[in-house]
Amino acid sequence: MNYSSKIGGTGLVGIFNNIAVENIAGFKLLWTTKLMLQQSYYKAFAAYAGCNLALAAAAASLCAFIAPAAAGSGIPEVKAYLNGVDAYSILAPSTLFVKIFGSILGVSAGFVVGKEGPMVHTGACIASLIGQGGSRKYHLTWRGLRYFKNDRDRRDLITCGAAAGVAAAFRAPVGGVLFALEEAASWWRSALLWRTFFTTAVVAIVLRAFIQICSTGTCGLFGEGGLIMYDVSAAKVTYTAPDILAVILLGTIGGVLGSLYNYFVDKVLRVYSIINEKGPAFKIFLVITISLLTSICAYGLPWLATCIPCPTDASVSCPNIDVSGNYKSFQCPPGHYNDLASLFLNTNDDAIRNLFSTSTIKEFHISSLFIFFGTVYFLGIITYGIAIPSGLFIPVILAGSCYGRLVGRLFAPITKLDVGLFALLGAASFLGGTMRMTVSLCVILLELTNDLLLLPLVMLVLLISKTVADMFNKGVYDQIVKLKGLPYMEAHAEPYMKHLVARDVVSGPLVSFSGVEKVGNILIALKVTGHNGFPVIDEPPFAEAPELCGLVLRSHLLVLLKKKIFSRERVLAGDQILRKFGAFDFAKAGSGKEIKIEDLDIEEDEMEMYVDLHPITNASPYTVVETMSLAKAAVLFRQLGLRHMCVVPKSQGRPPVVGILTRHDFMPEHILGLYPHIKRRK
Amino acid sequence: MNYSSKIGGTGLVGIFNNIAVENIAGFKLLWTTKLMLQQSYYKAFAAYAGCNLALAAAAASLCAFIAPAAAGSGIPEVKAYLNGVDAYSILAPSTLFVKIFGSILGVSAGFVVGKEGPMVHTGACIASLIGQGGSRKYHLTWRGLRYFKNDRDRRDLITCGAAAGVAAAFRAPVGGVLFALEEAASWWRSALLWRTFFTTAVVAIVLRAFIQICSTGTCGLFGEGGLIMYDVSAAKVTYTAPDILAVILLGTIGGVLGSLYNYFVDKVLRVYSIINEKGPAFKIFLVITISLLTSICAYGLPWLATCIPCPTDASVSCPNIDVSGNYKSFQCPPGHYNDLASLFLNTNDDAIRNLFSTSTIKEFHISSLFIFFGTVYFLGIITYGIAIPSGLFIPVILAGSCYGRLVGRLFAPITKLDVGLFALLGAASFLGGTMRMTVSLCVILLELTNDLLLLPLVMLVLLISKTVADMFNKGVYDQIVKLKGLPYMEAHAEPYMKHLVARDVVSGPLVSFSGVEKVGNILIALKVTGHNGFPVIDEPPFAEAPELCGLVLRSHLLVLLKKKIFSRERVLAGDQILRKFGAFDFAKAGSGKEIKIEDLDIEEDEMEMYVDLHPITNASPYTVVETMSLAKAAVLFRQLGLRHMCVVPKSQGRPPVVGILTRHDFMPEHILGLYPHIKRRK
Repeated sequence: MNYSSKIGGTGLVGIFNNIAVENIAGFKLLWTTKLMLQQSYYKAFAAYAGCNLALAAAAASLCAFIAPAAAGSGIPEVKAYLNGVDAYSILAPSTLFVKIFGSILGVSAGFVVGKEGPMVHTGACIASLIGQGGSRKYHLTWRGLRYFKNDRDRRDLITCGAAAGVAAAFRAPVGGVLFALEEAASWWRSALLWRTFFTTAVVAIVLRAFIQICSTGTCGLFGEGGLIMYDVSAAKVTYTAPDILAVILLGTIGGVLGSLYNYFVDKVLRVYSIINEKGPAFKIFLVITISLLTSICAYGLPWLATCIPCPTDASVSCPNIDVSGNYKSFQCPPGHYNDLASLFLNTNDDAIRNLFSTSTIKEFHISSLFIFFGTVYFLGIITYGIAIPSGLFIPVILAGSCYGRLVGRLFAPITKLDVGLFALLGAASFLGGTMRMTVSLCVILLELTNDLLLLPLVMLVLLISKTVADMFNKGVYDQIVKLKGLPYMEAHAEPYMKHLVARDVVSGPLVSFSGVEKVGNILIALKVTGHNGFPVIDEPPFAEAPELCGLVLRSHLLVLLKKKIFSRERVLAGDQILRKFGAFDFAKAGSGKEIKIEDLDIEEDEMEMYVDLHPITNASPYTVVETMSLAKAAVLFRQLGLRHMCVVPKSQGRPPVVGILTRHDFMPEHILGLYPHIKRRK
Repeated sequence: MNYSSKIGGTGLVGIFNNIAVENIAGFKLLWTTKLMLQQSYYKAFAAYAGCNLALAAAAASLCAFIAPAAAGSGIPEVKAYLNGVDAYSILAPSTLFVKIFGSILGVSAGFVVGKEGPMVHTGACIASLIGQGGSRKYHLTWRGLRYFKNDRDRRDLITCGAAAGVAAAFRAPVGGVLFALEEAASWWRSALLWRTFFTTAVVAIVLRAFIQICSTGTCGLFGEGGLIMYDVSAAKVTYTAPDILAVILLGTIGGVLGSLYNYFVDKVLRVYSIINEKGPAFKIFLVITISLLTSICAYGLPWLATCIPCPTDASVSCPNIDVSGNYKSFQCPPGHYNDLASLFLNTNDDAIRNLFSTSTIKEFHISSLFIFFGTVYFLGIITYGIAIPSGLFIPVILAGSCYGRLVGRLFAPITKLDVGLFALLGAASFLGGTMRMTVSLCVILLELTNDLLLLPLVMLVLLISKTVADMFNKGVYDQIVKLKGLPYMEAHAEPYMKHLVARDVVSGPLVSFSGVEKVGNILIALKVTGHNGFPVIDEPPFAEAPELCGLVLRSHLLVLLKKKIFSRERVLAGDQILRKFGAFDFAKAGSGKEIKIEDLDIEEDEMEMYVDLHPITNASPYTVVETMSLAKAAVLFRQLGLRHMCVVPKSQGRPPVVGILTRHDFMPEHILGLYPHIKRRK
């Protein structure tokens, strides 16, 4: 609970991010607008593109030189971590640093990227840091919250962090809990629901307090934003059969476009990963190229739009020369505004707000919406994968809401639903089509827009778009996890696993230890193999016949060897061994802090001595009989979140362990490598 | 998916229930009001109490004579079913019938009971009926949706039904999904999230459509009710430090009062169960007594209130002689209203709406609120447990919102928060204190009241009240499950299980079969024991040494024996046995439809014949080694939703199975009976 409330501080990072972005991007846009008003159009472009370029280069440098792991959304990595994949440096303090500042710089640079994915990753990093008791490397430590005993506790903490990230990014506390449940976590326990709820409640309260403070104008250009980011509750929600037909069509096409988005992102990522592998210089070059392209689109395309006279009944000022808002003046004469500039020359948040704006049907030309939709869809696809922290939510919402508004305009003759609500439904259809979440998206959209009456339609659109998109490919995060080659355990066993048994996929020669083993043997096994778990077998005289004593972990062996509690004879040492260790010596160390084999300093004569492994052996490892269906073994492995599973023989008179199954033995690549004749069902 | 959308029809039942209650109770209240206006006060009481009595007696008769299982909320039973406890007749068609009509009668009778719990149970019953392909007994069958292969599919369906129930009762589709997740289901899979979401989306769309139809006035006295039941979004939500202090205090006391509520409900239930066991007559007598008491309170207490002059600025008519709404005239002169009557002589829904009403600070006397709170708290406790379908949500919300409004009035000098919002927070604190849910309550309240800005405060109140109440006792549903003696498997192993191993709790002599077994032996085993699963052991000549072949289920044995595929010799029959069965012969039958041992007609000479059990043996049962920690075995059992688990020996040269563990072997009562010296931690 204590930790959860600390993670709640993620809300502060969220607010900080918001304030920084609004100020940096606001300053940039103000400068550009000022030069535009002086009709220095080339200067204005130079200022705009120059600012973008500088910010982009800064973000890329941070990413390329300090923490390459901070590039991208971060949600796939967090998802894989919560599935049990400890990827290197994903949650390191340097990643956290780059994620926060790189995200601010990247979003300010005008890229079509969001800060939501990075916020989730940031929340997870903060949680991890708190769980490890801070970072020793950077001399930031908290006493008292130093240790988290096991994988499960650490995973719970990271889950809370991810929930806090969403809660802070979208100001959607309940949506955060549901996101953690639906998308992030692989295992769910009722205790976890309570903990994530606690965390996001703290985030909500912190956010609320800061928004109240900022509303007095102490946060620079960050001003308005209440707890609800894109309020559409002003619109009247009434709909009848033709509206529902239009919405069903919108959902279907949205699902197709969403799955196409996933397809293209996948292709682009494959190309970019080749470029990015060539070195930091290439990474930065790629970022600069995309930045220039984005600047040219954002500044150049508004020239295609014709100026529109300001509406007479507008409650907001028009044309608007302020930092944000609708009705940008651009090159237009007084009393007119440029609708494309209102979308392009704004922060992404403001552009979305403009697209969601209700009761302003004719605010945007249909042609402008077409141009903006095409550009944003394209830029969103080619921007993800460059070396900056880049979320996927905002590009998808941006493209989706523009698509929705467009559909609303085209269906205007038969439907009475407000185009602002169509924009919201369009965003829902794109989100459903790319991310394939349901309840969490529903609640996030509800908390973003505060329109409860639209809920049945939002649910309908999500149902349709997800169903349609699922026919073509997987969700975007699953695709990225796969592309990165992370050994993600799916919740369900693959169909071909039903025709195999556990014994069939056990690989490699088994390395096992005796209950009281020679130090030299252990050292050799640790050096030669990369295994993290070894079965311990009791042999005579410690048992009548060889029998499985349990499983010992590499990390525990290293801790034991480091203390050098050896004996010359092959005898049981008993429980006093454990008394020589502190309560937390065997607790899981933070990343980069575990003992390495090079740290051991075993002398020649000690190699011949014995060490009793019983005290550190897990005497109740989960076991399966060798003839157990592989599908059922996979379910057991996944459901209980195991890392090792012992396969025991069925018939008697054989060694007590046939082998060890790990995550890698369940991967389709491994199994299909062993049995190439098995056809993989798509 | 097909089934989910059918369950979505639960929305129809929800609307039907609503319309029926509003019409019956509305008629009753109209009649009473009319007599009051004629100043025939005794006649009015006779009419009111008489109607209540008749309705109550009808509900009680249905419950007592047709389906005793329909009494109470039904949520605990559904929860236990989803945990794997197949209680008799819980989901039978007769239960469904009584649940629907008993609930309508009970709520119309003016009891302090809700229709929400019964709606959840109704949803589950409908789901079960659809899953079984209708009821053969009542000649209602659907072809094509006849069979659900296994426990898991059936559970998934029931979970969707429970979600649909909440969605229909509260008009809260997302809340329904979360309720199913947080409170009802014991196992959760990502596929289930999608299915419940689909179901509640259909419910939402059906509800929306019917509300639209009813809004034209075709549903009798049921008129207004939109998709949002208690809209408080009109209130302005601004709060500062003193408000938060008041809210924290409200949450704390609400938690205490909520846990006290649970305590009293438990005590009253124990007394009532003694009375109810004596027979239907006693059940009906108890219901009639409580009905009279309720009528006396509802009609008598308003006389204590002094008449209040109508507000001059009221937008609604005052005094109101209409069927529902605020400002009931009662005995007051024209231009005045009786505030207590506005609460008591109304349907529960309207009373809650009145308590939630915003911008009407002085509508109720503080003394009236005190009287109403005490009465409702008391009536709610003594009403649950009588033989009518009775939900707990409404009594708790009623008492809680009155408590909240009271706190709001008392804190009026230091807080500016609207008393209507205080009422909402009070309801949240009571719900948190009794039911101990978090996210689902949050979303249900959000969907009930449509006030997103209050979300941080609602979360805060839920956190506090749940934390406070958890210090005293368990949630009310858990208490009832325990009281009913249902063998509910907790998600977490009890601490004392860590000191035991699987072997320690295996009970009774093991009954096992040979791979090819004599028919007579099987029949005797089925008759003598009540076991549902038997290990099958291969012996020479079918194996070199005795080894575990798998596990066979009682139901499958009965199906096999019924077909009489026996042989005179002890030989393997091979796979052709299965060809004699249809695809669904081994599917789990609906309740009451499975083959019973009395249905078998085995002749004397067949008793000496052999039957090959291999084709129906589950060859991959989950196993644990006898020395496995009981805590870990319990986790495995619970997480995978098992019904049987084989315990295998550790050392060689012993029979291949030590015993079978079932749900009952993990129950604290069983374990503490075997090892009385183990102290049970509270």
